[in-house]
Amino acid sequence: MAPAPDATLGDAGEFGLISELVEIFEGDEHVLVGPGDDAAVLRIKHGHVVVSTDLMVEGRHFRRDWAGADDVGHRAAAQNLSDVNAMGGTARHLTIGLAAPADLPLAWALDFARGFADECASVGATVVGGDVTRADQVMIAVTVLGQCTQAPVLRSGARPGDVLALTGRQGWAAGGLAVLGRGFRSPRVLVDAYRRPEPPYAAGKQAAEAGATALIDVSDGLLAEAGHLADASGVAIDVRTGAFEVPEPLQAVGAALGADPMQFILGGGDDHSLLATFPDASSVPAGWQVVGEVTEGEGVTVDGAAYDGPTGWTHF
Amino acid sequence: MAPAPDATLGDAGEFGLISELVEIFEGDEHVLVGPGDDAAVLRIKHGHVVVSTDLMVEGRHFRRDWAGADDVGHRAAAQNLSDVNAMGGTARHLTIGLAAPADLPLAWALDFARGFADECASVGATVVGGDVTRADQVMIAVTVLGQCTQAPVLRSGARPGDVLALTGRQGWAAGGLAVLGRGFRSPRVLVDAYRRPEPPYAAGKQAAEAGATALIDVSDGLLAEAGHLADASGVAIDVRTGAFEVPEPLQAVGAALGADPMQFILGGGDDHSLLATFPDASSVPAGWQVVGEVTEGEGVTVDGAAYDGPTGWTHF
Repeated sequence: MAPAPDATLGDAGEFGLISELVEIFEGDEHVLVGPGDDAAVLRIKHGHVVVSTDLMVEGRHFRRDWAGADDVGHRAAAQNLSDVNAMGGTARHLTIGLAAPADLPLAWALDFARGFADECASVGATVVGGDVTRADQVMIAVTVLGQCTQAPVLRSGARPGDVLALTGRQGWAAGGLAVLGRGFRSPRVLVDAYRRPEPPYAAGKQAAEAGATALIDVSDGLLAEAGHLADASGVAIDVRTGAFEVPEPLQAVGAALGADPMQFILGGGDDHSLLATFPDASSVPAGWQVVGEVTEGEGVTVDGAAYDGPTGWTHF
Repeated sequence: MAPAPDATLGDAGEFGLISELVEIFEGDEHVLVGPGDDAAVLRIKHGHVVVSTDLMVEGRHFRRDWAGADDVGHRAAAQNLSDVNAMGGTARHLTIGLAAPADLPLAWALDFARGFADECASVGATVVGGDVTRADQVMIAVTVLGQCTQAPVLRSGARPGDVLALTGRQGWAAGGLAVLGRGFRSPRVLVDAYRRPEPPYAAGKQAAEAGATALIDVSDGLLAEAGHLADASGVAIDVRTGAFEVPEPLQAVGAALGADPMQFILGGGDDHSLLATFPDASSVPAGWQVVGEVTEGEGVTVDGAAYDGPTGWTHF
C-alpha cells in the first residue's frame, strides 16, 4: 500500500520507512546480501578497498528550504563518491544512515533516497545497507566503499618542480551558495551547481593513470585543499590567478554582491573539482588545467604572495 | 601540547579533535592508508566483505549520565562488531562519525574514542577513518567491515525441524537498563552488563562452522529477533521458557520492581547474544543452549501459546 502523501516518518515507523527505502536501493551482481540482514555481503575480487565516511547535518551542511530533497540526496552521494575519486579509485558500494525527527515528511526521506540512488547509479555504485533512527535534526551519515585497480594517489606525493592542475567546475557552487544566502534564486546555473554538484568522476582514475603525484578533491575550498596537499607533502604551492577564466555567471554575482569573483574560485568548495600535482606540464591529461606550481618550502601563496582573502568561502 | 582538562570540542576545533582521535586509533598491517587522506585504503585478500552501519543518538540510545564515555564507546563498537558476528564473519575495520555540540567536553570525545578502540582491539579490528562535525545532540555513526571465510549465515535459512539455540548473556542488559531507569545503580553486575555488553564474539563463526541454518544477534529483544528469523525464513518458532535459568541478579531485580524476570530474558536486547537455528540438537556447539524449535507456520509463540508480555523491553 502506498503511504499517504502527507505521511511523516512517525506515521511510517522504522520498519515502514526501511521497506520503502529498500525498494529504492537496488543491488548489483557484486552484492551477495543486500539490505535486510545483519550486514550486507559483497564480493571483492582482489586489490585495494577504499573507504570513506562523511556526515551531513541539517542547518550546517544543507537547508531544506535551499534545495529539494532529491538535490540533497545527489549532494550527499556526490560528496562521498568524490572522496573515492580523489584516491584514483572507483566507487562501488555505499551505506547510508538517516537520523530525523518523527515529523519529517516521509516524502522528503524517499525523494532524498531517490536522488542519492540516482547519483550513485551515475557512476555504477549501489546502496547496500543502512540504518534509520529518530533525532532532533536531520543527519545523514554515508560510508562509501570503492576499489583501486592501481596504487591510490595520496595527498603526500607532491614534489618541488611538479605542476598543480585542476579539473571540474570550481567556484560555481560557492557562487550559488552566496546567492542563496542573500535570499536570491538566480543565476540559476550557479544555484543548480550548489544544489547538485557535477564532480568530474572519471578524472581521478585518469590522473592516477597519467602519473599524478598527489590528488585531492576540493570540498573545503581550493586554497584550503592546496594547503592540505602542501602540508601532507612537505612542499610549498603557488596558485596563479591568471590561469583561471572567470565564468560570466560568477562575474555577474560578484558585481551584484560587490565581491571579487576570484574569491569564489579560490575559496569555494562544494563543486568537488579535483586538484592534482603532476611531474611536469606534458603529463597533465586532457581536461585538466595547470593552475600553479610546487616549490620547496611550505604553505600556499597566490601569485607569489600571501593571500588575505577568505580561503573557505562557505565560512561566511 | 596536551589539551586543557576542561577543553570543549569548540576549543579544540575540527582539526584539533581529529589529530587527537588519530592518536587513539592505530592501524594494522592491512591498512595501507589510514586516517588523514580522502579515504582509507585496505588490503582485502579475497572472499566476502561484510558491511554494516548503525546510528546511536544521545537520549535515545545512550545517556551520558547513565554510563561513562568509555562505556558508550565500548557499547557503540560492540553493537557493530556484533552485526558481523551475526553473519558468521570476523570484524576487521571500522569508520566512525561523531556529531556533537561545540560544548561537549573534549575529554568525553577522547574517552569515548578510547573505549571504542579498546572494544575493537578485543577482536583484532581497527578504526581506519571517520568524520566529525557539529550538531545539536551527540550522534555516533559507525560502519564496520568484516570478512567471511565461509558462506555467511543469513536470517532466512531456518527450516521446520530445526532447533533454536542461544549463546551469551541474555536479559542482563535489560535488567541493568530497568534499574537505571528507576534511578538505581545496583545490582552492579546488571548495570555493568548494560554499560559494557560482552557479546560472544567467537560464537558466530563457531555457529557457521557447525552448520547453523540461520543466525541473528539479539539487539531488539529475544522474541523480536526470533520473529525476524521466522519472517525471513517463512517458518514458525516456539520459545520454551523452561530452557532458561533465571540468574540470581535478575530474580532480585524482578522482585524489587514487581516484574516477572522472564520478561527481561524474552524482551531484552543490548546484550548482543546470538540466536541461531541448527538442523538438530546434536549439531548445536558447546556453549550454546537449545531454547526452542522451528515448525511449519508463521510467527513466534512462547511455550506453545501467544505471548502477551513486552517483546522489546527497551520500549517502556
